[in-house]
Amino acid sequence: MLDIIIHDALVLTMTGKGAGAIEKGAVGIKGNKIVCVGESEGIIKEFRAERIINGKDKLVMPGLINCHIHSSMSLYRGVAQDTRAWLQKGIGPFMKHMTESEIIIGSLLSIIEGVKSGTTTFCDFDYPMSKIAENYKKAGVRARLATLINELPDNLDELTLGELYPFDPGKGEKRLSDNLKLLEEWHGKENGRITCVLGPQGPDMLSMELLEEIKNLSKKYGLMIHMHVAQGDREINQMEKRYKKRSIQFLDEMGFLNKNLIAVHLTEATEDEARYLAKKGVNMVYCLNSIGIIDGIVPPVFEFVKAGGTAGLGSDQAPGNNGNNMFNEMKFAAILNKVKFKDPTVFPAWKVLRMATIEAAKAIGLENEIGSLEPGKKADMIIINLDSPNLVPVMCKPIRNVVPNLVYSARGCEVDMVIVDGKVILEGGKLLTLNEGEIVKKAKESARLLAERAYNSVKNSGTDTLLMMEEGYL
Amino acid sequence: MLDIIIHDALVLTMTGKGAGAIEKGAVGIKGNKIVCVGESEGIIKEFRAERIINGKDKLVMPGLINCHIHSSMSLYRGVAQDTRAWLQKGIGPFMKHMTESEIIIGSLLSIIEGVKSGTTTFCDFDYPMSKIAENYKKAGVRARLATLINELPDNLDELTLGELYPFDPGKGEKRLSDNLKLLEEWHGKENGRITCVLGPQGPDMLSMELLEEIKNLSKKYGLMIHMHVAQGDREINQMEKRYKKRSIQFLDEMGFLNKNLIAVHLTEATEDEARYLAKKGVNMVYCLNSIGIIDGIVPPVFEFVKAGGTAGLGSDQAPGNNGNNMFNEMKFAAILNKVKFKDPTVFPAWKVLRMATIEAAKAIGLENEIGSLEPGKKADMIIINLDSPNLVPVMCKPIRNVVPNLVYSARGCEVDMVIVDGKVILEGGKLLTLNEGEIVKKAKESARLLAERAYNSVKNSGTDTLLMMEEGYL
Repeated sequence: MLDIIIHDALVLTMTGKGAGAIEKGAVGIKGNKIVCVGESEGIIKEFRAERIINGKDKLVMPGLINCHIHSSMSLYRGVAQDTRAWLQKGIGPFMKHMTESEIIIGSLLSIIEGVKSGTTTFCDFDYPMSKIAENYKKAGVRARLATLINELPDNLDELTLGELYPFDPGKGEKRLSDNLKLLEEWHGKENGRITCVLGPQGPDMLSMELLEEIKNLSKKYGLMIHMHVAQGDREINQMEKRYKKRSIQFLDEMGFLNKNLIAVHLTEATEDEARYLAKKGVNMVYCLNSIGIIDGIVPPVFEFVKAGGTAGLGSDQAPGNNGNNMFNEMKFAAILNKVKFKDPTVFPAWKVLRMATIEAAKAIGLENEIGSLEPGKKADMIIINLDSPNLVPVMCKPIRNVVPNLVYSARGCEVDMVIVDGKVILEGGKLLTLNEGEIVKKAKESARLLAERAYNSVKNSGTDTLLMMEEGYL
Repeated sequence: MLDIIIHDALVLTMTGKGAGAIEKGAVGIKGNKIVCVGESEGIIKEFRAERIINGKDKLVMPGLINCHIHSSMSLYRGVAQDTRAWLQKGIGPFMKHMTESEIIIGSLLSIIEGVKSGTTTFCDFDYPMSKIAENYKKAGVRARLATLINELPDNLDELTLGELYPFDPGKGEKRLSDNLKLLEEWHGKENGRITCVLGPQGPDMLSMELLEEIKNLSKKYGLMIHMHVAQGDREINQMEKRYKKRSIQFLDEMGFLNKNLIAVHLTEATEDEARYLAKKGVNMVYCLNSIGIIDGIVPPVFEFVKAGGTAGLGSDQAPGNNGNNMFNEMKFAAILNKVKFKDPTVFPAWKVLRMATIEAAKAIGLENEIGSLEPGKKADMIIINLDSPNLVPVMCKPIRNVVPNLVYSARGCEVDMVIVDGKVILEGGKLLTLNEGEIVKKAKESARLLAERAYNSVKNSGTDTLLMMEEGYL
């Protein structure tokens, strides 16, 4: 007796080289695992289940994987778009006023946004992660967590544009020790739903000594490293000033470039550097909307993937992107690369769908557990309502149109059910594990208090958004 | 006594040079007109209404304007993305099999998709428009309609790539006469909700004689002309072959370049041509997703607007774009231009929001009726649920974040109410004027029959999507 069977659905297994479609398919779940995937008829005959879900006019596919999110930052969503000096002037004046409770509630808000739009796995990169981990426990989603390790002052005002960042070794050691505590407390917990990796914030944000220590820990325990790499001209300037090297050469010489590295952004990587990373087996996370909005740049993901690299997609954070919706990321990944290369065939829909599922799973080292619907994998999947007018019609012959429709027309609100680790956590679009209304209310109140505290800092920042506001545009 | 008052809402009037926000605002409606817009307190004191809507945690703004849509094409959504030779190989094999009833039901599906995502005005460019107009009447939305006038064979197979199109003057006269009948039957009907313009399909698709006739009619009756201009290298090739001129020089010499022209796409216009059009007072419609997906191109809209031109946004059609959601268009308009110019300050959120409201209204010649919330204008507006997690929090001080959030984070499904011409046509996300379930069902059945009839044409087309399907990607 299985726990759940979903039958007569259009199933995208994401196995093989494309989407792995089964037109009238079924998926069976027992405990937290997928037991069977295949033609509906065969599965219905062979298996019985406690809960039978009719998948007619619905699509079942693996849950989406957000390979890079700073979940806490949603309380200051929308304050730093269309601006220059995003970090220092745009978000810095808010960030420095955040309290721990605001970080927690902000993170919950991002998780809700993500789950409602079909995300089942979140690679969160934030601080204090041991507390944020509680959110993922409660939400019932899968998480792969890293503590942001840096040696920078907490108040970004202490950084002078164009000058070398001052490092505080005490802070670095504290953060690394927090990351190690995170591993102890959370790695493999919640039935394996929560795992942890190491999180040096970027090659420019901590000393060589601390980077060396982290690299050795990674080797010793076989832990992956989640790190911003070549994330902006800011970083490259720091690296050239401090080491007379660009980030990627520096990391190469330090021995970081291997399959254990999850390299996020590569905004300023050259095409050659991107190809080199691919050849070294480094994994890339492409945060297209965030980098498109903040920097106006399309990173060299096309070259990276063409050279055989494994890349997943990430939403980054709300004050840049400014949301955490993987459908949005897929759509932009495809179209931004088409216009970059003036070629409509670049990054077809099936490819970006893979970058949010099976390729993403590979990029974060969880391909044996998630990313596709296969017997033995964890039961993380989403059910999508295909009767939403923007997805109608579904055609299977002569051309199967559902993959382009998911990528170019779905918005995330068509997600009807979310199953993680075999448990239904969202049904009929409603979250079952968290009280959305209460969290939204708390988030609004927290944001109000944050905005009050940040008022003077923002007023003094001279950020472009403030000018737009004062000139009557916003 | 008013009919409706919405009070205590965040109101974006779209008056002035930006979004014209009123933080605690109200809007009053009587009949099909807006009577008052302003601070909630004053309006509540002064007016009474049959229906009082509490706008707390909601936003009221003008309904979105889709300046260019071929509404009938949704039945073959998603079949021609990521491909080359989009028209001939991608959609041609489906298009030529469409029956009139399929055109009607396809159009209804697009209208539903549009209204549910906040569109209140549709500039439809299709055939047979007199029949399609019935859809707009039933749906209760505003429409500005043009009959597609061309002299091409109905079956695009008769066109040979690279050779001059054969013209059929009989067909051209028939189509023009249909456009004139459309004007007679529909212009100004439904309380003025439906208006009509002239619709030559493109400078390459009909003879100079017919273009001349249309231009003279436009002058005689003061009618606007909705036309594809410089829509692809296909068009430029035809024009150079036939007239030894590029499209814009040709239209200039014919006397088309003035404020009565709604020039759609400008995909292949040079920057200089775009600036020239702006100076001549021509209006531009920018269909970014459609052109991004079909051609991998960002048209010179930035230069056009910078030169003082008026531009609105359009969704074009479903087998290219592949949806009809103006929130999607706004988001891409901003980000595609940021990456084109590698500058995050290009096309800020407030600007693209205007391009879907007041600037759009100007571009289609309806700025005296719609596009902003002002006393005396038609009561076309939408109410958005600001408690949707992806829009939380709303901050008003020190920075008002709602405009970036609408553009970069809203998806369209946050639209809670749609009012057109003073009538509520969508409430709680549910359409009141059309039976969505029944139409979706009919659309699915129609698409199934269309796909059967088109089967051999598609199989013989050798289109890229077919190859992707056969190779197991889709």
